[in-house]
Amino acid sequence: MSESTRPEHPIVVSPLATRFFGLPEGVSLVEPAEGSPGVTFPKGFLASGTVVGLKQSGRPDMGVITVAPEWRGGVASGIVSTTNAFAAAPVIVTREETDTDRLVAVDINSGNANACTGGQGMTDARETARLVASVAGIPEDSVLVASTGVIGKPLPMERIRIAIPGLVDGLSDGSLDDIARAIMTTDTFPKTETVHGEAGGTCYTIAGVAKGAGMIMPNMATMLSFIITDASVESGFLRQVFRRAADSSFNIISIDGDTSTNDTAILMANGAAGNPAIQAGTPEAERFEELLRHVLLSLARQIVRDGEGATKFVEIRVVGAQTDADARSAAMAIANSLLVKTAFFGQDANWGRILAAVGYSGAQIDQDRVALSFDDIPMVRDGVFVGGDSEERGTEVLRKKEFSVTVDLRLGAGNATVYTSDISHEYVSINADYRT
Amino acid sequence: MSESTRPEHPIVVSPLATRFFGLPEGVSLVEPAEGSPGVTFPKGFLASGTVVGLKQSGRPDMGVITVAPEWRGGVASGIVSTTNAFAAAPVIVTREETDTDRLVAVDINSGNANACTGGQGMTDARETARLVASVAGIPEDSVLVASTGVIGKPLPMERIRIAIPGLVDGLSDGSLDDIARAIMTTDTFPKTETVHGEAGGTCYTIAGVAKGAGMIMPNMATMLSFIITDASVESGFLRQVFRRAADSSFNIISIDGDTSTNDTAILMANGAAGNPAIQAGTPEAERFEELLRHVLLSLARQIVRDGEGATKFVEIRVVGAQTDADARSAAMAIANSLLVKTAFFGQDANWGRILAAVGYSGAQIDQDRVALSFDDIPMVRDGVFVGGDSEERGTEVLRKKEFSVTVDLRLGAGNATVYTSDISHEYVSINADYRT
Repeated sequence: MSESTRPEHPIVVSPLATRFFGLPEGVSLVEPAEGSPGVTFPKGFLASGTVVGLKQSGRPDMGVITVAPEWRGGVASGIVSTTNAFAAAPVIVTREETDTDRLVAVDINSGNANACTGGQGMTDARETARLVASVAGIPEDSVLVASTGVIGKPLPMERIRIAIPGLVDGLSDGSLDDIARAIMTTDTFPKTETVHGEAGGTCYTIAGVAKGAGMIMPNMATMLSFIITDASVESGFLRQVFRRAADSSFNIISIDGDTSTNDTAILMANGAAGNPAIQAGTPEAERFEELLRHVLLSLARQIVRDGEGATKFVEIRVVGAQTDADARSAAMAIANSLLVKTAFFGQDANWGRILAAVGYSGAQIDQDRVALSFDDIPMVRDGVFVGGDSEERGTEVLRKKEFSVTVDLRLGAGNATVYTSDISHEYVSINADYRT
Repeated sequence: MSESTRPEHPIVVSPLATRFFGLPEGVSLVEPAEGSPGVTFPKGFLASGTVVGLKQSGRPDMGVITVAPEWRGGVASGIVSTTNAFAAAPVIVTREETDTDRLVAVDINSGNANACTGGQGMTDARETARLVASVAGIPEDSVLVASTGVIGKPLPMERIRIAIPGLVDGLSDGSLDDIARAIMTTDTFPKTETVHGEAGGTCYTIAGVAKGAGMIMPNMATMLSFIITDASVESGFLRQVFRRAADSSFNIISIDGDTSTNDTAILMANGAAGNPAIQAGTPEAERFEELLRHVLLSLARQIVRDGEGATKFVEIRVVGAQTDADARSAAMAIANSLLVKTAFFGQDANWGRILAAVGYSGAQIDQDRVALSFDDIPMVRDGVFVGGDSEERGTEVLRKKEFSVTVDLRLGAGNATVYTSDISHEYVSINADYRT
């Protein structure tokens, strides 16, 4: 992006963002004034969270996000959901019955995934949407339902029926914190991110929450994410840009290689900021995409950082591949290799396991060209160990809580980056011991 | 097979075989007389193992198997090796330079994989083959070399040069036990299997050894297997049948989903039994294939049983799939799911994780038709939990050391079986803690 296309208004990024990701190019950090309104929450949205009793812990487990009534006319939204053929009832209901063009409310519960629940599950997901719609006075197909938690148990509808009026009553603006907490499962911290941008001289906000790919006690890995913005965005462009941003954030992380039945990410833009609608191909669109990706990537990285039992945060970079697809296959094979992940946990600079994973990834390679390094310490050059004290220096890198692995295939310009965690004793405990 | 095609001679199967697999159809168990010659070892083969010092433990780490000089003229052999693009030097040398039509000797070392060793590795693999050939008085391209162990370190050729004459000198008939021990790495027991068959009124023996897919300290999962038979077998048929038998044994097991740089399996048939050569399409061929598969499957099952840190042996059966390929994808997804494997370790009847793995396997499914059971306890019918006391009864099954999981997709006639183990704390320890 050239200097001339940069907005003159400063772009405010939450301090959390810089902790997790640094700043996007051309974005300056402005600490918001204490209590300054509208800095942390997009205008024209309401949110609410409560305890329904779906979690044994008694923590918040249900939430609703809605567009404020006066902004319900011009909402653009996008949905990305799981590719698992055992998609849960709420995912199926959303795909088949929610009208993306009029989406104005999201109902979310944790503690019960409403997956593998057959016809009853579909009936329950529909009833939940209908109840929210009825209490909020909106059409049923304007409500999206999302669930995460135990598989195979019917939703306790008697409790949900009682909870919904209170949830809708409690809707207020100001924060997504209640939602961030209500969707937590084995997450150890709530995951949120907020950035501010500018279009046509008007400031807008993008805020998002997510829950982790750590497995839900006692059953499933699920990623849920809800992103809201008060920017006005042309709806076709919004869907394209959301898909692209999800592909380069949520879809480049891997904790254990399992894809859940419930993964869902939603973006709603209500236009309350009052900017002229952002159109594809403009500098504003470019900046919006950059900021949206920043939010998603920050959330994705928080998810990896909070992977169950994770002790390491590892950036896997494959460069010099024949194609981007090859680079991605290789990076994913490394990120999902149990041998590699246990070596990370053991702080073992075991480059052999990494090359072996590249070797079975299906990516085109020439053994005699490959290079590998941990952070900036070269371990392998032209396919062989570089020797010297690199073993010791590589081990030093792996002792860090965060490091990168770079594999250069030296065959072309294809590259990919993936974020992953290690597999620890704690991971096995979390996933083996819960119900015994 | 009809009664009339069964040989009249009893087919002797080692007691070990029945322990691990039961008997193939039409095979009766005859306990060999104490010390009866030729019952446990095919005629016309010699073997030898020794300590070269490649393993820190000081245990046997190198072995040679040869065809006895008088039988070197009519050997048929087959080789199956890793699909990993980082194939180790011995695998490449074998593929490019060994003449399968004249293979009469195999040299094996454990403790060092000679992988990611560049040009030096190729030179060392070739020199090893040349030394064995020279001492044994056979052509260099008649020797196959196989290695397993640490990646990225050059072979200590000075020790190997000294060891080879002694190894060749020490060749004797009678047993593959020394070989079975010399190829062990993190294996906790040697893996052997022997069966006896009959062709044209002549008895023959098939004997095999294998080492496990447990990771080599400190680096790699590798499977090596060496099978010898004194049957005379037409060489084209032998290669076909070996490929088929490997596909339905070594290629249906999974411990951690990682494919090694060194996997190699070899079958040599020397004709010393004196039977008329077994030809494709005959009853003898059918019986030979059955027995060969029995040996390979027994070895494969021993490997899973001895998986690193394994506490469970699980048979995954997917039936009713649209195609066999779909069934295999689904069974492999289940076998490789970290969530499923930690649930097995936790003795948690967590059918939701299993269905989720089927859901992302790519296999065609209809959620409303799927059934799942642990042994003979139904857990899921028509895609939903069967309820009642099945949770408790399923948990009882998972407390066993061995059990089966059956998923019926009810879409067609495709089916597949895969053997796998669980992932335990011990697995993480073995693979994380070695070098720290």
